[in-house]
Amino acid sequence: MSEFVWPVRVYLEDTDAQGVVYNASYFRFMERARTEWLRDRGIDHDELRLRHGVLLVLTAIEARFRTAGRLSDLLNVSADVAELRHTRVVFDQRVVRDGKGPAVVCEGRAEVACVDAREPRPRRWPEPLWEELSK
Amino acid sequence: MSEFVWPVRVYLEDTDAQGVVYNASYFRFMERARTEWLRDRGIDHDELRLRHGVLLVLTAIEARFRTAGRLSDLLNVSADVAELRHTRVVFDQRVVRDGKGPAVVCEGRAEVACVDAREPRPRRWPEPLWEELSK
Amino acid sequence: MSEFVWPVRVYLEDTDAQGVVYNASYFRFMERARTEWLRDRGIDHDELRLRHGVLLVLTAIEARFRTAGRLSDLLNVSADVAELRHTRVVFDQRVVRDGKGPAVVCEGRAEVACVDAREPRPRRWPEPLWEELSK
Amino acid sequence: MSEFVWPVRVYLEDTDAQGVVYNASYFRFMERARTEWLRDRGIDHDELRLRHGVLLVLTAIEARFRTAGRLSDLLNVSADVAELRHTRVVFDQRVVRDGKGPAVVCEGRAEVACVDAREPRPRRWPEPLWEELSK
Repeated sequence: MSEFVWPVRVYLEDTDAQGVVYNASYFRFMERARTEWLRDRGIDHDELRLRHGVLLVLTAIEARFRTAGRLSDLLNVSADVAELRHTRVVFDQRVVRDGKGPAVVCEGRAEVACVDAREPRPRRWPEPLWEELSK
Repeated sequence: MSEFVWPVRVYLEDTDAQGVVYNASYFRFMERARTEWLRDRGIDHDELRLRHGVLLVLTAIEARFRTAGRLSDLLNVSADVAELRHTRVVFDQRVVRDGKGPAVVCEGRAEVACVDAREPRPRRWPEPLWEELSK
Repeated sequence: MSEFVWPVRVYLEDTDAQGVVYNASYFRFMERARTEWLRDRGIDHDELRLRHGVLLVLTAIEARFRTAGRLSDLLNVSADVAELRHTRVVFDQRVVRDGKGPAVVCEGRAEVACVDAREPRPRRWPEPLWEELSK
Repeated sequence: MSEFVWPVRVYLEDTDAQGVVYNASYFRFMERARTEWLRDRGIDHDELRLRHGVLLVLTAIEARFRTAGRLSDLLNVSADVAELRHTRVVFDQRVVRDGKGPAVVCEGRAEVACVDAREPRPRRWPEPLWEELSK
């Protein structure tokens, strides 16, 4: 069961002329969930950069689309730590349509690296973030 | 007649579930035309920032939508200097559908300010850009 | 004072390489507020199309940008009926940064027309929507 | 070697506040390349729907990000048929930065299904599309 779920409403901006949610929109939704997962733990992008000198950088992402999301849908987007290494983490993510008979809309996997804010090389997780990730 | 026209193809990403081009997409198209107007004159964002210490910042924009653009349309987006001041410029912009019987899809107006790259205050146009704008 | 305010969190997807909220993002935010204004009154796009045979179509929009919105900002986006006609309505909209010393980020104006769902001609507002708009 | 390459210029709209191309933008770029791959073979979305009663639907996609794309970059996006089945096709896609010392920015894989335009069930490729895909 997912520990963290972030609700996302589907607006016109998220849809396309095939009448459904446009594929790249799901990657925006998945990132909102990861960002809110962090914020929920008291961590944000600015603090990571200014206090710890690191950026979180998406290094790989994938998604399998099961059912189409549609205009006005309320989607629940989850983010769960699936795999934790010293300089990167993999989140399992699901997008589930809210309502009677919830349906899995999309299943994804996002790999995020901890990177030095000034040059593109890996960095170990700052202590407070490591603690949250390894809980 | 427009001096500068930039062609834009409409992809799924630009459309919405009403089956037409999503409104905010036109502002992306209009900015592509302004950016290419600059590039056509040998000027780009990086050069302005690094050599002249300025940013171009959009301070106001408006658009009136006449006809709907659709998936696969080829749209011609124009950018013409309508009004030039010492620290800002107004572009008139039109989006016209290509094809037999070209149709005006959208008419817009964009005000761009020249701003110091380090602090948010107006700056005069760098000489090379001023020359191009006042031609 | 605004009657209706919708909070919008700024994510990476909304920003650009100048480090601020990208201009077209504000038009997405403004539409979210208008859509939620409707939903708040029990009206949604599907119901309008299926029960009343109409679409709401944006016919003109404008925005003046006052201060830059930034990553992680919480923005309050308002929508107020400024002008009501038989087949169209104008909303005044503001984007205000939340926090100590709230700051106006952007001021806009959106004209929305009531259009027949099958052919592009104006239609009078359906009764329930007219009632809400003219309150 | 890639048979089909589509050039994509990076604009402000494609970047984010980390100063690089935003991750979901690559999925928009990859779809432009697939769409132009089709158009190059005389096939477009409207024709598929109206003449053959089918839609092309993205069922899975993945990307690995190697280097960051940046504002003003010219990116070459390829699309190559990697695997062909009766109702779906997998494209290998690469995003390569143009210039001296071209660099691989992103490697992806997109699975596209042929689906009935009226109900969500798989359909065999229409003959003309099958011929192009299996070349």
